[in-house]
Amino acid sequence: MTMPRTSPTAAPVVPSTGRRRPLGLGDVRITGGFWAERQSVNGAHTLAHIEHWLELEGWIRNFDLVAAGDIAVGRQGREFSDSEIYKLLEAMAWEIGRTGDPDLESRFRTIVRRVAAAQDADGYLNTRFGHPGQPPRWSDLEWGHELYCVGHLVQAAVARARTRPEADDGLLAVARRAADQVCAAFGPDGVDGLCGHPEIEPALVELARLTGEQRYLAQAALFVDRRGHGRLADVEFGRQYFQDDVPVRVATVLRGHAVRANYLAAGAVDVAVETGDAALARAVRDQWHGTVARRTYITGGQGSRHQDEAFGEDWMLPPDRAYSETCAAIGSVMLAWRLLLRDGDPRFADLIERTLFNVVATSPGTDGRRFFYTNTLHRREPGTVADDDRASIRAASAMRAPWFGVSCCPTNVARTLASVAAYVATAGDDGLQLHQYMPGTVTHRLADGRAWRVSVATDYPHDGEIRVRVDGDGPWTLSLRVPGWAVDGATLTVGGQTRPVGPGYVSERRAWRSGDEVVLRLPMAPRFSHPHPRIDAVRGCVAVERGPLVYALESVDLPGGTSVDDLRVDIGEPPELVDGRVVVRCRQLHADDPAWPYGDDRAAADTELREVPLVPYHAWANRGPSAMRVWLPMR
Amino acid sequence: MTMPRTSPTAAPVVPSTGRRRPLGLGDVRITGGFWAERQSVNGAHTLAHIEHWLELEGWIRNFDLVAAGDIAVGRQGREFSDSEIYKLLEAMAWEIGRTGDPDLESRFRTIVRRVAAAQDADGYLNTRFGHPGQPPRWSDLEWGHELYCVGHLVQAAVARARTRPEADDGLLAVARRAADQVCAAFGPDGVDGLCGHPEIEPALVELARLTGEQRYLAQAALFVDRRGHGRLADVEFGRQYFQDDVPVRVATVLRGHAVRANYLAAGAVDVAVETGDAALARAVRDQWHGTVARRTYITGGQGSRHQDEAFGEDWMLPPDRAYSETCAAIGSVMLAWRLLLRDGDPRFADLIERTLFNVVATSPGTDGRRFFYTNTLHRREPGTVADDDRASIRAASAMRAPWFGVSCCPTNVARTLASVAAYVATAGDDGLQLHQYMPGTVTHRLADGRAWRVSVATDYPHDGEIRVRVDGDGPWTLSLRVPGWAVDGATLTVGGQTRPVGPGYVSERRAWRSGDEVVLRLPMAPRFSHPHPRIDAVRGCVAVERGPLVYALESVDLPGGTSVDDLRVDIGEPPELVDGRVVVRCRQLHADDPAWPYGDDRAAADTELREVPLVPYHAWANRGPSAMRVWLPMR
Repeated sequence: MTMPRTSPTAAPVVPSTGRRRPLGLGDVRITGGFWAERQSVNGAHTLAHIEHWLELEGWIRNFDLVAAGDIAVGRQGREFSDSEIYKLLEAMAWEIGRTGDPDLESRFRTIVRRVAAAQDADGYLNTRFGHPGQPPRWSDLEWGHELYCVGHLVQAAVARARTRPEADDGLLAVARRAADQVCAAFGPDGVDGLCGHPEIEPALVELARLTGEQRYLAQAALFVDRRGHGRLADVEFGRQYFQDDVPVRVATVLRGHAVRANYLAAGAVDVAVETGDAALARAVRDQWHGTVARRTYITGGQGSRHQDEAFGEDWMLPPDRAYSETCAAIGSVMLAWRLLLRDGDPRFADLIERTLFNVVATSPGTDGRRFFYTNTLHRREPGTVADDDRASIRAASAMRAPWFGVSCCPTNVARTLASVAAYVATAGDDGLQLHQYMPGTVTHRLADGRAWRVSVATDYPHDGEIRVRVDGDGPWTLSLRVPGWAVDGATLTVGGQTRPVGPGYVSERRAWRSGDEVVLRLPMAPRFSHPHPRIDAVRGCVAVERGPLVYALESVDLPGGTSVDDLRVDIGEPPELVDGRVVVRCRQLHADDPAWPYGDDRAAADTELREVPLVPYHAWANRGPSAMRVWLPMR
Repeated sequence: MTMPRTSPTAAPVVPSTGRRRPLGLGDVRITGGFWAERQSVNGAHTLAHIEHWLELEGWIRNFDLVAAGDIAVGRQGREFSDSEIYKLLEAMAWEIGRTGDPDLESRFRTIVRRVAAAQDADGYLNTRFGHPGQPPRWSDLEWGHELYCVGHLVQAAVARARTRPEADDGLLAVARRAADQVCAAFGPDGVDGLCGHPEIEPALVELARLTGEQRYLAQAALFVDRRGHGRLADVEFGRQYFQDDVPVRVATVLRGHAVRANYLAAGAVDVAVETGDAALARAVRDQWHGTVARRTYITGGQGSRHQDEAFGEDWMLPPDRAYSETCAAIGSVMLAWRLLLRDGDPRFADLIERTLFNVVATSPGTDGRRFFYTNTLHRREPGTVADDDRASIRAASAMRAPWFGVSCCPTNVARTLASVAAYVATAGDDGLQLHQYMPGTVTHRLADGRAWRVSVATDYPHDGEIRVRVDGDGPWTLSLRVPGWAVDGATLTVGGQTRPVGPGYVSERRAWRSGDEVVLRLPMAPRFSHPHPRIDAVRGCVAVERGPLVYALESVDLPGGTSVDDLRVDIGEPPELVDGRVVVRCRQLHADDPAWPYGDDRAAADTELREVPLVPYHAWANRGPSAMRVWLPMR
């Protein structure tokens, strides 16, 4: 067994090849602004909140029970609850890597010890299966989530190994033994099976990248190839629920359970990159394009069906029954980031930006102790406040809730926020690429001792000016992403020269000198966005966007008695920024309350124009129960 | 114990009081037309098809296994499968009452014997609970469906007793013993519980009406009163799923599982009528009005949520994810009919007509051997043909299927079609009321030996002329319903005089002579119907209706390569009847296939007007897989 070698950067995804090389938490420091605030709340409140709930629910204690031999009678939680502990460990690992918090380090080690104590002698590690009085190992591949849990264990260990390569906590050894046991059980000579919930695939590839052990990659490739041939049972939701309907390299669009679909696609890109399987990579890229074109909400949210947490058919994007699970959005970021590293196409970064600002940032409330699991785009009636001390139903999107019976989203948000620096910048052979804009510094140390280094000053997304200051001398190329929404009006100023720039990467190759400054100015006027005519559910409506933010109309901003559903927006004039708030002009409709709601075209009276303020979608439901619309009917 | 007394009419609902008295299968004979065709297919094919599947699935055999003491190991099917046998028995009973088919009589008796043999000594009858190796009786009131199954057993027995009061098959005795056991177990001194799926409530009231035994009524009233106080567990879908969230007399709208909601409301009306509880009846009537105004599809379908087969919130009526379960529509007919008998309001008959033609008639295919469980109003892609020899998933609305894992709808359709004559006409103290129009005869025999008798000749709904010929002399009042959709242009001709009439009941009191004729002419020009502005999901669209029929656009009627989703209807001119087909004028949109579907208002090119034929919604998906729209976007 070779010793683990640590990757050069502390990032979740470190491919051995690709057009872009990731820069991790050591190279990208976020020093303020929108994301720093969220990281601060995440570190100060969310991690402890999650730990509290994992203890309260008994999900960590399950590991103690396994170690004590008492698991069969005392186990708490759903079959995938182990994964929440692993996702918390991953979040803690990134946070420790980011801040070095000694208290967090101590809590992290305590949990690792409890997990490690539950590992079987042969490496198998799961609290739900395989012990006396429990169902046998691997006896429910459709729903058991055993491989899924190992996947999250591995990802936690990878995060830890990359952020604290010198640590002696033993987590990586635990994860490797679990992965080795998986390879033995499911290898070419083992069970010809796969997991109902993809996740082991990207995890094993990352473990191979970390350790250099190619058999982890081979096992991931095997899992990807096995899927799509009906090895899993034909459940009520059909085999597309877990993407076992069509082989990955044959499918044309993401389908079925939206989290599973994105995790699988991410793993398939990882396999394709490491094995040089260009056809597989192209297949997933084409699926991504079809999914973004026809199956994605304006927020970046994915998955419109509550019943099976799944993608609907093309163009099936109802705002009021949007499922748009937080975890699906995180899966979408995982996938888009892998495609970006491989291909360098700015559209992948466009979707990441949209999804981070409008779904990932929407899920946690301002206190970091309540979360949206689903992210609806329309609520007709204000919801009720969820109990503080009781887990909620996952799909209750009325208000954020502290915890859920299926509580995948809070831990997923925590690990994503703690590692968000990893999605900011990349390096190529000749320079740096900035994909997301936030105050901070980006450094890429070259093998020859030189470094490409910039600092970013900006109040983005509140303001469109992004000032990039070069620190250090030398010739290299600085590339800045002009977002896809900045169709018109963006400019770049370099060396006193200002020129218009359009969507895509704008690159400046220069012999930089310390103090050189590049200023990107993005057009931040609020704008109306119209849906494609095939999106039936929002026909006749517009949304309001400003920069990367989608806006929403909340009933708490309306006079009492006025419904968000009775306003009709006047698109004759664009939305405006008034005293820092985005404002649209609306008329109020007064439609009769009919005995039967179908018949003659009802001429509804309306009142004079009034200005109505909107809020960024990510900020909604933070001021008490409220009705809400993203899509506003036009007059 | 008093002997059963048979009700004067062979109808499913025979209240002891009310503004209207039902006329049953002995009094109303359907002799041809739309419904006679469906009754013929139902009798010739559907009943045998259902019997075949019940045997194939082992659901009848479950009763044999109970009798043999082998049920714990061999039982097949879901917890409510007994009810399908009872619904088949009810359908057979009505069909035997209608036709006197001796072969069907023999098959009916065979099944009754097999059911009776499974009854416990104390009257308890269920194949899923209460026998050695099974969960105890009443141990899962939320999901066990035991009381629900007894309800359907009772309804089968009532149908049999009213159509063949002299029969010695023993079904009524079986049902009474089961009902007696329920009263003993759940009476004031028994378990303070209720069933997760309402159905026992209307059944027990009908048994009281049939037998005169008031304790059945008292038990039904107790069940209605017990509901709404949180006696059932707080399941994932919330207690509104089984209406245990709010007491019946406090609720303001139907909510939760749409079949359960309608069955409960029907039972509550029954209780209210028999106990003289006007406040309870008014509460349900107000719930009905709110439900029809804000939670009902243009087809009459109810329930928009797949996840829990439930009503959505007010105005949440997506056409593409319409659940619109066939059984919910049948429940809606049950409820509206009870309200009509009590109050005589024509709007109840309007909804019954709409629902029968556009949901109940839509479910079975032309061969009577395939069914829609859900009734979507929009399919973007043609479905696939369901297997002939394999039960389908209930919610797969792509095409009709021969059977379902949850197969409540085929038996419900069968019993409704076999008894549809019971919804045609009523009597009051001074005459006859015709609510639905089909060729046939209606007779009401008075206690004094006289009879009010009419024959109806019509090709409705293909044609709007309804000729009613009086047979017999005497003074009484003939009332004809002018449907709510006939806002303009309906006329009534009596004694050579023609006058315009509007929606509601138009009454003629005369000293009738045999051969007198009344002709109602309804306006049958196709028409556009607009949705209320609060129904977001179909904003900017119109539907086409003609008479009571909703129409649909099917892709099989379009040239290859044209999508139903790319047509834009021109409402400048009304739809027309051309060679017997309803035709609208459309332009075809040519929208680009975007990389991202939100942004500028896309000017989409369109081609010249063309005429596009529509089909009645009930007839769709009978010519192979097809995409389909009820709501057509306007230009």
